[in-house]
Amino acid sequence: MGVYIAGVGMTKVGERWDKGIVDLAEEAAINALEDANIKKIDYVIVSNMVTEFSNRYGNLSGAIVDAIGMIGTPYFRVETACGSGGSAVHLAYSIVKGMGKNVLVIGVEKLSDFVTTVNTSAMMLAEDWVTGLNVGGTFVSLNALALRYYLERFNADHDQIMMLPVICHKHALTNPYAQFRREITLEMVKKSPVVADPLHLLECSAYGDGAAALVLSPDKGDVEIVASVVATDVFRVPNRADPLIFKSVKLAAQKAYTKAKVTPSDINVLEMHDAFSITGVIAFEDLGFAKKGEGWKMMKEEVIGLNGRFPTNTFGGLKARGHPVGATGVYQIAEIALQLRGEAGDNQVENANIGLAENIGGIATTAAVHILRRKNQVR
Amino acid sequence: MGVYIAGVGMTKVGERWDKGIVDLAEEAAINALEDANIKKIDYVIVSNMVTEFSNRYGNLSGAIVDAIGMIGTPYFRVETACGSGGSAVHLAYSIVKGMGKNVLVIGVEKLSDFVTTVNTSAMMLAEDWVTGLNVGGTFVSLNALALRYYLERFNADHDQIMMLPVICHKHALTNPYAQFRREITLEMVKKSPVVADPLHLLECSAYGDGAAALVLSPDKGDVEIVASVVATDVFRVPNRADPLIFKSVKLAAQKAYTKAKVTPSDINVLEMHDAFSITGVIAFEDLGFAKKGEGWKMMKEEVIGLNGRFPTNTFGGLKARGHPVGATGVYQIAEIALQLRGEAGDNQVENANIGLAENIGGIATTAAVHILRRKNQVR
Repeated sequence: MGVYIAGVGMTKVGERWDKGIVDLAEEAAINALEDANIKKIDYVIVSNMVTEFSNRYGNLSGAIVDAIGMIGTPYFRVETACGSGGSAVHLAYSIVKGMGKNVLVIGVEKLSDFVTTVNTSAMMLAEDWVTGLNVGGTFVSLNALALRYYLERFNADHDQIMMLPVICHKHALTNPYAQFRREITLEMVKKSPVVADPLHLLECSAYGDGAAALVLSPDKGDVEIVASVVATDVFRVPNRADPLIFKSVKLAAQKAYTKAKVTPSDINVLEMHDAFSITGVIAFEDLGFAKKGEGWKMMKEEVIGLNGRFPTNTFGGLKARGHPVGATGVYQIAEIALQLRGEAGDNQVENANIGLAENIGGIATTAAVHILRRKNQVR
Repeated sequence: MGVYIAGVGMTKVGERWDKGIVDLAEEAAINALEDANIKKIDYVIVSNMVTEFSNRYGNLSGAIVDAIGMIGTPYFRVETACGSGGSAVHLAYSIVKGMGKNVLVIGVEKLSDFVTTVNTSAMMLAEDWVTGLNVGGTFVSLNALALRYYLERFNADHDQIMMLPVICHKHALTNPYAQFRREITLEMVKKSPVVADPLHLLECSAYGDGAAALVLSPDKGDVEIVASVVATDVFRVPNRADPLIFKSVKLAAQKAYTKAKVTPSDINVLEMHDAFSITGVIAFEDLGFAKKGEGWKMMKEEVIGLNGRFPTNTFGGLKARGHPVGATGVYQIAEIALQLRGEAGDNQVENANIGLAENIGGIATTAAVHILRRKNQVR
């Protein structure tokens, strides 16, 4: 059975003091349902990382299903830290493929109800609290260590890596849902405060609230999910053989390419998980778009820009569209769907037939890779 | 495709100061895997309610999969409050049925790392924080209101309802995994402190830590899951037309009976969600074992005892086996499986061919009903 994207919906990402977590989920869900125009939804899957910690909900999916008037419908919350969105879409895909059901996936996160220091703790929950935060590590500092090691080992140019957030911000300018719709320059990234040496503030995604939703169907929609693969890796980064390889991403991507019968060179549009600049560079390599240690060279307009060889994070990515954690993986797939439908507006990539979305949880403890294809290909 | 239980594993429920949440999950998982003797597991689904709140894990399933040495295997955490276990088994069932995969389900909860007052708040997360706890409601007080209304409306005998925990404790005496292996008398229940009038302490399940695991397979195992249904209801109890009807349980049970081609009278062994005495009585009715308003009359040995007409909570139920929240729904199904395999030891019900497990989340905002059948029926 095929699995199609019948509808997409999103909210603006940002500090959404105007709405609660259930309201955000409702807005995205209603948009996706209207877009899909499907009467019967058989399952609702909510992806969210830290609601119990940050919003005091222990039955969030129940509250959301009530709010959208779908009482009676089975609901589930799925969580795999920052990878919750991709994981939820994968489970939804499995249900559509195996059982022929219509599934509504809603990714949502609201962090701004809490103060920043608590959010730093919240994000560290994605890694190991005992051997991490308790000894002074944070999610930012772990990624800073990766960047430092990468720069030294591959003799990489940090300035070139900093072009990733610069290009992402450029893409976000014309995205009405983006958290940061303003241009930044390389100079601004370099002058921004060092959060954890050598990682600068403008290389890090920020805290954002938001929700995105998809309706998956076995028969309706112009975009097909031709591969949905999840793979995982050793939990604690210090225990890995090579901290600069995301094995989960590599494994999931290889399986996805095989399943979709494509290679990286066939991909017309890419959404990758740039929680930090270095996270994006490593993913770009492990997805097969560059050799290990050479991804940093590709962080330029000619490669990842809207008219580049591999248009990447075309709505701004985690850095500029925003990173509402449990929702991020759903945003990515919604954005790829808009590109393949030719509905990306000012952000449209030409001849977008095949797209790929990569979402990770923890420091790639888990990875979900989705490959999407336009039903009636254009050339 | 059929869905079979190939392996079950459990830990003792209680205040497990000796083990962390990952250790408990590991113990149950290893037991289930050894029992199943299946080499290849395709998916790991972890059910858990409040780990971010109570154990500071935001990627718990990743930590567990690492601990059990299944690195690479896709993992997911599923949460629907107290109904997480039943929901996780339902998703696992869907994956086995639709895709023919082997799935390991691990339910786990560890609450004793936190103090009791915080746990009272944690449980209230299953209901609405805004209109509930913030105005002085707790999970116990909401259920106490239900009991008060039930007693008045149906002119029910509270003493008879109190026999449910008495019988559950009797069943737990011979369950090595039970939290409370001691007999209690009706007199003891009546003399126990009133927690929220008219609910006595010994009518309430306690906080417990524990883990249970199942291996589901499309071809291996002597017990078949012949129906797995989830249904849901209005989120906030005060918004329901009748607070003494669990519509989610009714709907899920009706669908499950139809699917399994059985009626309540065919059920040989029953596990129901007795978080409170009244919760059990209402479920007993909405599952179809008694008319509405008459379930209280059935809370006696002749009906729910091991040799009764409908042997119920044969290992002690939530009250006496214990209620490690996100794990409870998995314990129930593991126990039914042991009964149908004839491996229930001193707790064995004679001629157990068909069993039913009912697990709810929130105050039955969601309900999972599973009907299991022994492959080679005995008579």
